Amino acid sequence: MTAYARLTARFARIATVGEASSVLGWDAAAMMPPGGGAARGDQLAVLAGLAHGLLTAPETADDLAQAHAQTEAGDDEWDAANLALMRHAHTRATAVPADLVEAQARANSACEKVWRDARGRSDFAAVSPYLVEVVSLVRQTADAMAPALGLSPYDALMDGYQRGIAAADVAPVFARYEAFLRDALPRAEERQARQPLPVPLPGVFPADRQEGLCRHLSARAGLEAAHARLDRSAHPFCGGTPTDVRITTRYDEADPAQALMGVLHETGHALYERGLPAPHARQPVGEAAGMAAHESQSLIIEMQSCRSDPFLAWLGPELHGTFGGPAEPYAPANLSRLWRRVGRGFIRVEADEMTYPAHVILRFRLEQALVSGDLAVADLPGAWRDGMAALLGVTPPDDARGCLQDIHWYDGAFGYFPSYTLGAMAAAQLMAAARRDVADLDAGLGRGELGPLVGWLRLHVHSQGNRLGFNDLLRAATGKPLDPADFEAHLTARYLADGSAPQA
Amino acid sequence: MTAYARLTARFARIATVGEASSVLGWDAAAMMPPGGGAARGDQLAVLAGLAHGLLTAPETADDLAQAHAQTEAGDDEWDAANLALMRHAHTRATAVPADLVEAQARANSACEKVWRDARGRSDFAAVSPYLVEVVSLVRQTADAMAPALGLSPYDALMDGYQRGIAAADVAPVFARYEAFLRDALPRAEERQARQPLPVPLPGVFPADRQEGLCRHLSARAGLEAAHARLDRSAHPFCGGTPTDVRITTRYDEADPAQALMGVLHETGHALYERGLPAPHARQPVGEAAGMAAHESQSLIIEMQSCRSDPFLAWLGPELHGTFGGPAEPYAPANLSRLWRRVGRGFIRVEADEMTYPAHVILRFRLEQALVSGDLAVADLPGAWRDGMAALLGVTPPDDARGCLQDIHWYDGAFGYFPSYTLGAMAAAQLMAAARRDVADLDAGLGRGELGPLVGWLRLHVHSQGNRLGFNDLLRAATGKPLDPADFEAHLTARYLADGSAPQA
Repeated sequence: MTAYARLTARFARIATVGEASSVLGWDAAAMMPPGGGAARGDQLAVLAGLAHGLLTAPETADDLAQAHAQTEAGDDEWDAANLALMRHAHTRATAVPADLVEAQARANSACEKVWRDARGRSDFAAVSPYLVEVVSLVRQTADAMAPALGLSPYDALMDGYQRGIAAADVAPVFARYEAFLRDALPRAEERQARQPLPVPLPGVFPADRQEGLCRHLSARAGLEAAHARLDRSAHPFCGGTPTDVRITTRYDEADPAQALMGVLHETGHALYERGLPAPHARQPVGEAAGMAAHESQSLIIEMQSCRSDPFLAWLGPELHGTFGGPAEPYAPANLSRLWRRVGRGFIRVEADEMTYPAHVILRFRLEQALVSGDLAVADLPGAWRDGMAALLGVTPPDDARGCLQDIHWYDGAFGYFPSYTLGAMAAAQLMAAARRDVADLDAGLGRGELGPLVGWLRLHVHSQGNRLGFNDLLRAATGKPLDPADFEAHLTARYLADGSAPQA
Repeated sequence: MTAYARLTARFARIATVGEASSVLGWDAAAMMPPGGGAARGDQLAVLAGLAHGLLTAPETADDLAQAHAQTEAGDDEWDAANLALMRHAHTRATAVPADLVEAQARANSACEKVWRDARGRSDFAAVSPYLVEVVSLVRQTADAMAPALGLSPYDALMDGYQRGIAAADVAPVFARYEAFLRDALPRAEERQARQPLPVPLPGVFPADRQEGLCRHLSARAGLEAAHARLDRSAHPFCGGTPTDVRITTRYDEADPAQALMGVLHETGHALYERGLPAPHARQPVGEAAGMAAHESQSLIIEMQSCRSDPFLAWLGPELHGTFGGPAEPYAPANLSRLWRRVGRGFIRVEADEMTYPAHVILRFRLEQALVSGDLAVADLPGAWRDGMAALLGVTPPDDARGCLQDIHWYDGAFGYFPSYTLGAMAAAQLMAAARRDVADLDAGLGRGELGPLVGWLRLHVHSQGNRLGFNDLLRAATGKPLDPADFEAHLTARYLADGSAPQA
């Protein structure tokens, strides 16, 4: 058995343990009775420890060294990429001393717990010392990883969520978007103000009927019931494994949009997992290409396709057929005004697609400053308020609607936020390329057909696995690295076009 | 850290991996889309391998040797028992060479697959060569374990399911029951023939309403919703973990008895898991005391309590209130005739409580002969027919209703069958002891109250964990080792008493 063969077997075991953890995580959110929580935490910790042990075992290092010397994997592009990813995962796992990993896990857990309560009371001071500790440990972790990976400390953190793009690539893209937004947002608001107010969908929307419709739409998009489930959880997500995807949503009986668009969003994630290259299953190269790539797949389904005019024109009568009542609110023009409303809000997860990047840009800048030490935790609330005022012209009235709103930092996740907007931009870029390649893509959307788009994504994104970094994946699929022009063009067409006729 | 402290940490990790596997097993049966099956098999195999690796690691042997030398655990009875169980588990796991374990797993899996198809066609010849291989490997495994455990080969197999009772203890108990049955069964049949035929419950019993009632009854028996779930699966079972028990059932809309009694049965298993001693959680001594002990807990709830006259008198109106229709079929006398009917059938899982042991006695004798080599696999169908004729006076018309009916042997499980009847006998013995200790137990059952019985079981069985072997557990709880007299007395009172008035 060659060193590379031993490595593929070992990484398959690691991935298989990860699959078990993913199903257990889904169960904890969707099925588990509350009394099982403590035991589940232990189960996930033990599995994580066993997977970490397999990855950092001396045999792994030996085989990685040998496989390198032999360049036995070099003949095949996929194997070469796989070996590089194995080495990359091993480097990340071994660069940080075990006691620092443990201290970080403990600090994250303690801080997140305090944060839950502090957010409710909008009490930043209560959680501040815990966040100081988390940030200090994150900085040590980033410093430990940076030289091993040949990246800056913040890039080493970002790399944990999305490889193949650095802060130096992202900063100018975000700066350009800030300028775009400064011009576009007021114009979109003016245009919106000239339009009639949207009419809310009337009536009660029973959760069971919403769920049936969500299943129907998800299946129409190509998610097979033999390989997926849709269930309910407090926070929608996509989990499970490539042959057994688990998506969740929640139902608001006064408003079906949340569940409908949420399930279409998660279906985008799920289709990505389903389309990963089966011959490379359980190998690093067979995984999804990162969090930004993943978000591009949910947003190209939800935002680019299902909130487009042609799709809404098809969806309206479907909804009306399901829920009954007066037909007028289901007219596409009303749905587009209802479900594509821009506004300057305080809360990221409630933001529309035009202002959402401003929320991310703020966090991207602040978290770099926190990690570098340029911003003290004590100064975070003020910096947040100033940033919101500068980016969106609004100032949150309290920290609950400011720097306390997201779990990420309080749980130790730094470098993740850019993924959301990189994904949104990539989704627009991929959609523009798909429109060039696939005839009548929008006409198909007007018949509720996502198949042609999903087929294109399967070829150009899903089946590529994790072979390429973010910018290389985009280059291969669209002919260029990340380019915010397509996202701006999309927003311009959707929110700034003249006339009151709905646009794609 | 002492060797014993290292061992408790290690065994806690092993148990925690087992918890993960148990939840994943539940998910596979109750939730998983069919396309997830192959990946789930891999996940369970990898987790089993990791747990086995922890158990058989050289460090475990070193610590077991050290802990022995120090007798550091000897001060506390529970720790001493725990250390003995650790050593026992380690001995079982290391006695069998890894290649034999693997060959057995492969042979079981191949045989079970062929059996599924062969049973459908009643084609013993098709599966026979696979069973020959399974039996040959089982014999090698038993031979490997026997000297290490100081048991006979068949007892070494039985010990894997229930320690603390040997074939030499079981054989006379079963022989006595055979004699009892020869006399009792014709008398029960005669008595039954003198009674009116039971009237089937009329109407349709919607699965959702059955499920609601099952949840209600399970909660009444003491299973807390914060620590348990009830779901649906093809084959009812109890899984999960002590703080997060998962029970399942299936619903026949023409007959609610299957689900009702099935859920009460699984509730008995679940209450045992819930009542295990929390301070010893995840330690061998904190587990349930074996499969026969477990079955005693399901049967004392289902058979001893919920099919008793007082409970049926309470349950009838509950059922009638839930399902409506004419009241007469819900009268206790009719329910007892309907749900306590004896008969000579071919199928174990459909057997009543009086004839069920005959099915087990047959298997107990045949599997000993297979393992010893006294019976060739080729002669199994004939030996089965002869055995059924001798024990119950009926001859199965084909092997599907004969030696092909159960999965156990075809999946490599030898030594398990006695547990069913040992459990049934222990349930009667425990019930008799509880009746002596708890005033008005039956009056409580007449008010649908299982609490006093469950409280007694918690004290005398559940909270004892795995501290004692089967006979010692019974001795501590009832004052004597396994004694079939209580089971015979129970059957005599229920099925042979004079008059047509219902009896407990």
